Amino acid sequence: MIAEDRAGRPCDFHEVDETVTTSADCPFCVGNEHWTPESLVEVRDAAGNWQVRVVPNKYPAVSLDQASFAPSPGPLASTTHAPFGAHEVFIESPRHVQGITDLSQEELTTVLLVQRDRLRMWSSDKRVKYVALFRNIGHPAGASLGHIHSQLVALPEVPAVVATEVTACQLSYRQYQRCAFCQLLADELAEESRIVMSDGPFVAMCAYAGRQPYETWILPAEHQSGFENLADELFPELAALLQQLARGLKQVLSPLSYNLLLHTSPFGLDPAQFHWHLELVPRSTQLAGFEWGTGMYINPLSPERAAERLRQEIC
Amino acid sequence: MIAEDRAGRPCDFHEVDETVTTSADCPFCVGNEHWTPESLVEVRDAAGNWQVRVVPNKYPAVSLDQASFAPSPGPLASTTHAPFGAHEVFIESPRHVQGITDLSQEELTTVLLVQRDRLRMWSSDKRVKYVALFRNIGHPAGASLGHIHSQLVALPEVPAVVATEVTACQLSYRQYQRCAFCQLLADELAEESRIVMSDGPFVAMCAYAGRQPYETWILPAEHQSGFENLADELFPELAALLQQLARGLKQVLSPLSYNLLLHTSPFGLDPAQFHWHLELVPRSTQLAGFEWGTGMYINPLSPERAAERLRQEIC
Repeated sequence: MIAEDRAGRPCDFHEVDETVTTSADCPFCVGNEHWTPESLVEVRDAAGNWQVRVVPNKYPAVSLDQASFAPSPGPLASTTHAPFGAHEVFIESPRHVQGITDLSQEELTTVLLVQRDRLRMWSSDKRVKYVALFRNIGHPAGASLGHIHSQLVALPEVPAVVATEVTACQLSYRQYQRCAFCQLLADELAEESRIVMSDGPFVAMCAYAGRQPYETWILPAEHQSGFENLADELFPELAALLQQLARGLKQVLSPLSYNLLLHTSPFGLDPAQFHWHLELVPRSTQLAGFEWGTGMYINPLSPERAAERLRQEIC
Repeated sequence: MIAEDRAGRPCDFHEVDETVTTSADCPFCVGNEHWTPESLVEVRDAAGNWQVRVVPNKYPAVSLDQASFAPSPGPLASTTHAPFGAHEVFIESPRHVQGITDLSQEELTTVLLVQRDRLRMWSSDKRVKYVALFRNIGHPAGASLGHIHSQLVALPEVPAVVATEVTACQLSYRQYQRCAFCQLLADELAEESRIVMSDGPFVAMCAYAGRQPYETWILPAEHQSGFENLADELFPELAALLQQLARGLKQVLSPLSYNLLLHTSPFGLDPAQFHWHLELVPRSTQLAGFEWGTGMYINPLSPERAAERLRQEIC
């Protein structure tokens, strides 16, 4: 995606101090709302103060307005299309805090509910096939602002990473009458060595072939294809699990920087053919030439050892 | 690749000073040869001093010794195999310099010849299907030591990134009787807007869908599948072109950090089905959740604008 409007976006990481609780210079802090585009959604507390805001990204990678699109010239131009889509930012607290453990469980529950509702809204837009929802914590993970936030990008196509998982689910369903993730969950729960937590409606486990040390996947124990269908009553438990994991990871990786990626069903897909999950990828090793040149990853920590350390920290 | 032996490797980037010309603490500096494994290859100057050393990586991601392999337990174990291969480091100067523009053209020519010869050596090893050759410059690009070096990893399989290109070449050959890169070169030379340099045996051009600003590809103008077959007399020109490019990139990106990746033919492939090339990927933007979650990249600079800037700096 060539997105020249994104050049020049602010980066405050040269001056961030994790102990700071308010910041006069931060566009996401309460009082600085005029520095961001107008809210698409706002959740307010009993006193009427905003708790979560959803705003259009001021430096979007994609746009609903396609008028100005001109593809790069040449024969490949016919294979390109306008960068259609929407790019939104969830500002998750009026306070200048950075991590999900700086929110109360109730606050994080509210954030997750707002994310689900936004996904639900986009699922009814016929132009959109997929929504990528993600959180970048820390500069090594690509965050440009230290104030807690997450993002979504609504896309007119299914990204390659997700398409590969759909294919795996289809193959698995044909062979075993359950999706690849249901199959994986059953295997991992029987094997135990990579399980971090499994005593609720969600299972957290270190990935069998994780790309980075402590890469951890969170899946609903019962099959469910799209995150937009998760029931209200399960959100407090999801928030609690994410906070427990983040606290555990902080004990083994300091400073903790990570990406949290939602993989959810492409819209309109047969619900048997996907199983939503979150991939939490700590960013402790740089991607170097080997990874860029091959698409392979070198992980210096086995998932069994990682899960054992996390279980020790969490229990 | 789970490679627990790699944890604990040294990182000197907290203390590197680019103006330093010798370093008592650097394992790659002349005088500190006993800190590295013994040389596999050494090139010496007329006075008998080593100029380039090839050594086994002290913290290898793969190994020729498979005795100790135990796959992670569980049903997926049957889909894994031992991390077979070789991981070698090219120490490219006795002096503590970091970039390819710190070498003379003759010195870089020698380095490239040593890389080719090492690739040639591995091409006759029946256990090896592919060699990944790459250079990481700067900490953002994943270099752990500031002393100029490159690496190769000999693999028993063809990486996904290269397999995709092989498929494209096969399809192209069937349709046009030339490989996808010959087709691309013809198109790009006709279009001109993304060409950086084209007046020699190699063409440098900004990638049509580059993943990062200033991503530049270098290809032999005449079809050639494997880098191990490049003739001696073309090496000084390749060295000169790489140095010109690096000097140009330094003017537009400071500090310059990049990965230089060789994509070469898998061993034993029909020579019509690949066209070796180098991908120079500057690392100026962090990979964040969007990239990890989708496999798509957001590039805030068009390739036409990038090529124009580079042409201005180089000419």
